[in-house]
Amino acid sequence: MLHDPNRVYVFDTTLRDGEQVPGCQLTTPEKIEIAKELEALGVDVIEAGFPISSPGDFQSVVELSKAVSEPIICALTRANKGDIDSAVAALQYAKRPRIHTGIGSSDMHIKHKFNSTREEILERAVEAVKYAKKSVEDIEFYAEDAGRADVRFLAQMVEAVIAAGATVVNIPDTNGYCLPDQYGSKIKFLKENVKNIDQAIISVHCHNDLGLATANSIAGLQNGARQIEGTINGIGERAGNTSIEEVVMILKTHEILGLHTNINTKNFYELSRMVSSQMRMPVQPNKAIVGSNAFAHSSGIHQDGFLKNRENYEIIRPEDVGFPDASIVLTARSGRHALKFHLERLGFSLSKEELSEVYHRFLTVADSKLDINDQDLLLMMGKQQLA
Amino acid sequence: MLHDPNRVYVFDTTLRDGEQVPGCQLTTPEKIEIAKELEALGVDVIEAGFPISSPGDFQSVVELSKAVSEPIICALTRANKGDIDSAVAALQYAKRPRIHTGIGSSDMHIKHKFNSTREEILERAVEAVKYAKKSVEDIEFYAEDAGRADVRFLAQMVEAVIAAGATVVNIPDTNGYCLPDQYGSKIKFLKENVKNIDQAIISVHCHNDLGLATANSIAGLQNGARQIEGTINGIGERAGNTSIEEVVMILKTHEILGLHTNINTKNFYELSRMVSSQMRMPVQPNKAIVGSNAFAHSSGIHQDGFLKNRENYEIIRPEDVGFPDASIVLTARSGRHALKFHLERLGFSLSKEELSEVYHRFLTVADSKLDINDQDLLLMMGKQQLA
Repeated sequence: MLHDPNRVYVFDTTLRDGEQVPGCQLTTPEKIEIAKELEALGVDVIEAGFPISSPGDFQSVVELSKAVSEPIICALTRANKGDIDSAVAALQYAKRPRIHTGIGSSDMHIKHKFNSTREEILERAVEAVKYAKKSVEDIEFYAEDAGRADVRFLAQMVEAVIAAGATVVNIPDTNGYCLPDQYGSKIKFLKENVKNIDQAIISVHCHNDLGLATANSIAGLQNGARQIEGTINGIGERAGNTSIEEVVMILKTHEILGLHTNINTKNFYELSRMVSSQMRMPVQPNKAIVGSNAFAHSSGIHQDGFLKNRENYEIIRPEDVGFPDASIVLTARSGRHALKFHLERLGFSLSKEELSEVYHRFLTVADSKLDINDQDLLLMMGKQQLA
Repeated sequence: MLHDPNRVYVFDTTLRDGEQVPGCQLTTPEKIEIAKELEALGVDVIEAGFPISSPGDFQSVVELSKAVSEPIICALTRANKGDIDSAVAALQYAKRPRIHTGIGSSDMHIKHKFNSTREEILERAVEAVKYAKKSVEDIEFYAEDAGRADVRFLAQMVEAVIAAGATVVNIPDTNGYCLPDQYGSKIKFLKENVKNIDQAIISVHCHNDLGLATANSIAGLQNGARQIEGTINGIGERAGNTSIEEVVMILKTHEILGLHTNINTKNFYELSRMVSSQMRMPVQPNKAIVGSNAFAHSSGIHQDGFLKNRENYEIIRPEDVGFPDASIVLTARSGRHALKFHLERLGFSLSKEELSEVYHRFLTVADSKLDINDQDLLLMMGKQQLA
């Protein structure tokens, strides 16, 4: 199945799991615009919608199938014929269609959501995969709430759906409950105990309820998974999904993992802003990789070290993720070195004594002001305002 | 040193590492207001500032020392006498003062930031601790950039500063570089190889550049650390610090870890909003634990399961972190169950046939609208607008 054992496939669900968030709904043309950017980013799979859920969602899957050609287009279903028929119809124009079907795998879901038994659920899972397989070759199966499922039953389910034709098995931590070592162990158990596991790709789909989605995804990859599911900016239901930009940049930064994706990381910044703006979903300034402050150095200790050698405080070059520039910001916590850097940038050359005197004035201004821009510096140096 | 081996101390640096972020600067009265709420939250240590860095910061440490009585008040310094003298002076009114001093521990920092050698750095580290110890009993030492430091040299440094009187040893992943298993291994190595390690508490201070701060902190605790450093909302330099609310709720949710803090988790929501508003630092809706959507269920599959049994999709009760309520939001992705739930809440009792008919109308409206509120539902049911 896999040609390169170190290749990690990226499954984007910004337009499905992300789009179902209150206030994030998009029109079909907006979805197409984002889908084209996802294609340019280099994602392997775009989950385009849940066709049975509404006429608008059905139509979006149809139009996205026509609009993009490189990535696989995937449609979500529950494990029943009506959902699958709708997905098959919606995917009719997709060059590389995939159906994503599945059912609950934890006893909590089996009992309280489906009012069913393990045996019956297993049967429904296998039936759904077989039914979908009649129309579409590429079938991904999700074992909902796998994070809380009994691992032996989960292994049994995974083995059965692979035997039924699943090409990808998705092990979601639906509630964002697992610790990284727990989630990693679960994937390891499947890799070691499901006898046909090499006939499918294991996919990780993590939620961020405890702030661990990225770490859990990495733990999954370290233990044999080769597809990660996530969204741009980590948007999604509740605390959201795994941030694709975080996982990809971890793989890139940690060469020791020996894993790689097909992602053009320089596209992250712009796509992050597009998704945020179209979905009306702000990205906090301290968001990893794409937040507006992600590469901003402000404290005196840090700025000093940064100016001496940027690798002292920078493990990713901002330009690698498409950031406009890495800004050093002046505040009351900035040191003499940072002040000197900015003054030199503005054309002032100061002796050590002059710098000390200016630094004293700078601190007085900075204590009463949030941050100091070029205009403040020029005023402080007795110059007129910038044009 | 530790009475209860399973007690995790919480060190808040919202007012120091958080406050140094561009745009986040606070006045002293604002800092006092937040410090009092941190005291009510039950944090063990408040890092109040970096006294040598500016007159305003010095004054804040003085005033915070007077204003709160329960938590330890900590002041940051570099490893030199001037910084330490300033911190001692600023802490004069603190009931339980702590000095936080330290120096770079990675070869990158030693060479490029300090232009020094391991031997010289070790000497400066020990001297700083001894000097600070003359004035203050409780000394925390930070080994800056420990995440990238050679672990044997780090162990040597930790052993030397504990021998010199350090009561807490902080092992910062200054650049947010480590993977959880790497960071955990580092803490484990120190726990197993530093012969006086039991005379001090190991503290974890992680940054979120790769989205791993929370996971790294947990890995540190799993391997023997007993103090975590972080901020409310994870604010801080660049991609920020560890989110205290995430680590605390992980410990509470995963009883298997056997660790506990003194935190009143019900205070999280309100304090999160106060910090966000005073520091002008938005919290994204999909932020774990405190984001506005953290407990909002919107998709049909999820709402249905949630309504049947909230534990299907909820691992933390919103009220445990002080959330006003857990809202089910209606969108084009919502199912019949969610619609029925809201209609019943508004006083409509519908037969199955009636519900099907209303659901059809609902989908048409929802496809053209971001989310459906009570007013929309009433209009849809032929009622007048709400007053």
